[in-house]
Amino acid sequence: MLSFFQDYKKSISTFLHSFLLQKKEQLRLINLWGQDSVTKLLNFVDQGKMLRGSLILFSYDLFQKKKNEELIKVAAALELIHSSLLIHDDIMDRDELRRGKKTMHTQYAEHDTSMKDSQHFGEGMAICVGDMGFFFAYEILSTLNIEKTKKDNLIELFSKELMNVCLAQMQDLSAGASKKEVSEEDVLSLYKNKTARYTFSLPFMLGALLAGQHKKVLDQLSLLGEYLGLIFQIKDDELGIFGEEKTTGKPLGSDIKEGKQTLFSLYLFQTVTPEEKKRLQNIFGNASFTKDDLRYVRHLIEHKNIFEKVNHIIKKFKTQAEHLISNLPISSEKKKELRNLLEYNLERQK
Amino acid sequence: MLSFFQDYKKSISTFLHSFLLQKKEQLRLINLWGQDSVTKLLNFVDQGKMLRGSLILFSYDLFQKKKNEELIKVAAALELIHSSLLIHDDIMDRDELRRGKKTMHTQYAEHDTSMKDSQHFGEGMAICVGDMGFFFAYEILSTLNIEKTKKDNLIELFSKELMNVCLAQMQDLSAGASKKEVSEEDVLSLYKNKTARYTFSLPFMLGALLAGQHKKVLDQLSLLGEYLGLIFQIKDDELGIFGEEKTTGKPLGSDIKEGKQTLFSLYLFQTVTPEEKKRLQNIFGNASFTKDDLRYVRHLIEHKNIFEKVNHIIKKFKTQAEHLISNLPISSEKKKELRNLLEYNLERQK
Repeated sequence: MLSFFQDYKKSISTFLHSFLLQKKEQLRLINLWGQDSVTKLLNFVDQGKMLRGSLILFSYDLFQKKKNEELIKVAAALELIHSSLLIHDDIMDRDELRRGKKTMHTQYAEHDTSMKDSQHFGEGMAICVGDMGFFFAYEILSTLNIEKTKKDNLIELFSKELMNVCLAQMQDLSAGASKKEVSEEDVLSLYKNKTARYTFSLPFMLGALLAGQHKKVLDQLSLLGEYLGLIFQIKDDELGIFGEEKTTGKPLGSDIKEGKQTLFSLYLFQTVTPEEKKRLQNIFGNASFTKDDLRYVRHLIEHKNIFEKVNHIIKKFKTQAEHLISNLPISSEKKKELRNLLEYNLERQK
Repeated sequence: MLSFFQDYKKSISTFLHSFLLQKKEQLRLINLWGQDSVTKLLNFVDQGKMLRGSLILFSYDLFQKKKNEELIKVAAALELIHSSLLIHDDIMDRDELRRGKKTMHTQYAEHDTSMKDSQHFGEGMAICVGDMGFFFAYEILSTLNIEKTKKDNLIELFSKELMNVCLAQMQDLSAGASKKEVSEEDVLSLYKNKTARYTFSLPFMLGALLAGQHKKVLDQLSLLGEYLGLIFQIKDDELGIFGEEKTTGKPLGSDIKEGKQTLFSLYLFQTVTPEEKKRLQNIFGNASFTKDDLRYVRHLIEHKNIFEKVNHIIKKFKTQAEHLISNLPISSEKKKELRNLLEYNLERQK
């Protein structure tokens, strides 16, 4: 990660600790789950890179030197919402690991194994913790001390982009369950709405809005965020197939096991022979996925020139992103920082 | 229901229709789930009594004659949040019916039965729709056009009471799964946090806050809400055992089937002989619950004088509520309306 992102994360984390510790004090009086749930939520948020929150601070710093206390709150709120969405997603995807640790529903499922149906109990508890995260986040947002027009615009941005995420998640669930063939356009549209806009466009726009920038700049950043986010997601998919569990914190080949549709799987299925396709269909989305299966998929991707096709798309997005960066009304030093971020997205290993 | 509650519901429903229809127009452009999810959510909200939203308007009217446009928005937001909580609760409780209609996850589970694991798909989709409801609600709240101190207080009230609900739901899940014996105090504390405060205290306080009332009155209403809510919940439990499916919209004896801890089951287990207890333990929480089982439980409750014990508690709460009503700084006409509400809670059949 770019070095100054460590500082961003630290300041967001400090705010979240102080906010949630205060909540913990209040909630432990209600019942024994008060302290427990807030502690689990805080640990969960803290394990992340806090990329989205950091990008808000990064974007603000592109335009403004003046410190802004309210900025950290917006970043913390986005990180809370992100954690809650992940907690809910992990239930839907039946994931047991996230960021190298047990997912929220798995933690609760193992809380007391003598319980009847402890898996279902764990899922219910995790739905609740996710809901709590949303409420905390919006409490922070609703009480922001900024001028009304800015605040209304900010809430509108949040609302619009979170709807994109929810609807893209529904599309993803439905594609996963129905096993219908999808197109390159479907995959890219999902990437855009589920990840790119929400991970890059939204933080960019929030930071710029708080820095007093107007619609034209926000629109430029929105588009730049899409390209950066698309590259980020394609890289994520690559790591899902070629990454190591120790580095990524996710089980080896989990995307394949879940049968997730990615650019890699899409191009692969388009390229293989009928026999190979048959074997692949047996591997993707199969719960009894083995290391041999993973080796086979990796081998095929490497020998069928899939990377060439994927890199062609990445290059197109990169060119667009560079063009947008050049046209932003910021100093050349700040443009360099944005280009570094672009490079990071292209080269990250976790 | 008190006759003027129909008018309250109508005005909240009108606002929700116009708000969600506008959202539907925006979201149908994202993907095919946009229109579908908002339609399902709107139908779900509209099927309810909108008791909580109506109580905000009712409480405001106790103190103020002047119309307030923002009031309806707060009521609509609470109804959206309530629907989302119910959608999530129904997943946790594995309920298939709510308000006489299919629960959200059941609707999605039946969307395309050729899907693999359509039940899990339905639950995932319903988690998403619930999340969307929270985001819509907080969008409405965050953009309320009221003075800052009032708004901060309002958000704080929401936040505090919603935490109570989440934590009480976690306690309920854990009690249901662990099958530990609970005390009368446990049951009443759950009633208070999961239902009473959120259904009566919160709306009462919100209405009074918007009507310009100060802390002292809000505290009185908070306590009054607890007593009214406790009576409401005990009556709900009675209907869960003695109510008819046609009137309540819930499957016959569903609370018994789920093994839900109520005052009725608590007192019953304390009163029966060891043989009767054995038979009851086999009935409560048993998925293959029959009409004969229900008849047996009803028979025991009637012959073991359980109603006498329950009514003793109800009477205590009623006396407290009446005392609080007398001391409120409102006209005697308005006090009469509150007493009518108390009577409704004592006598409702659905």
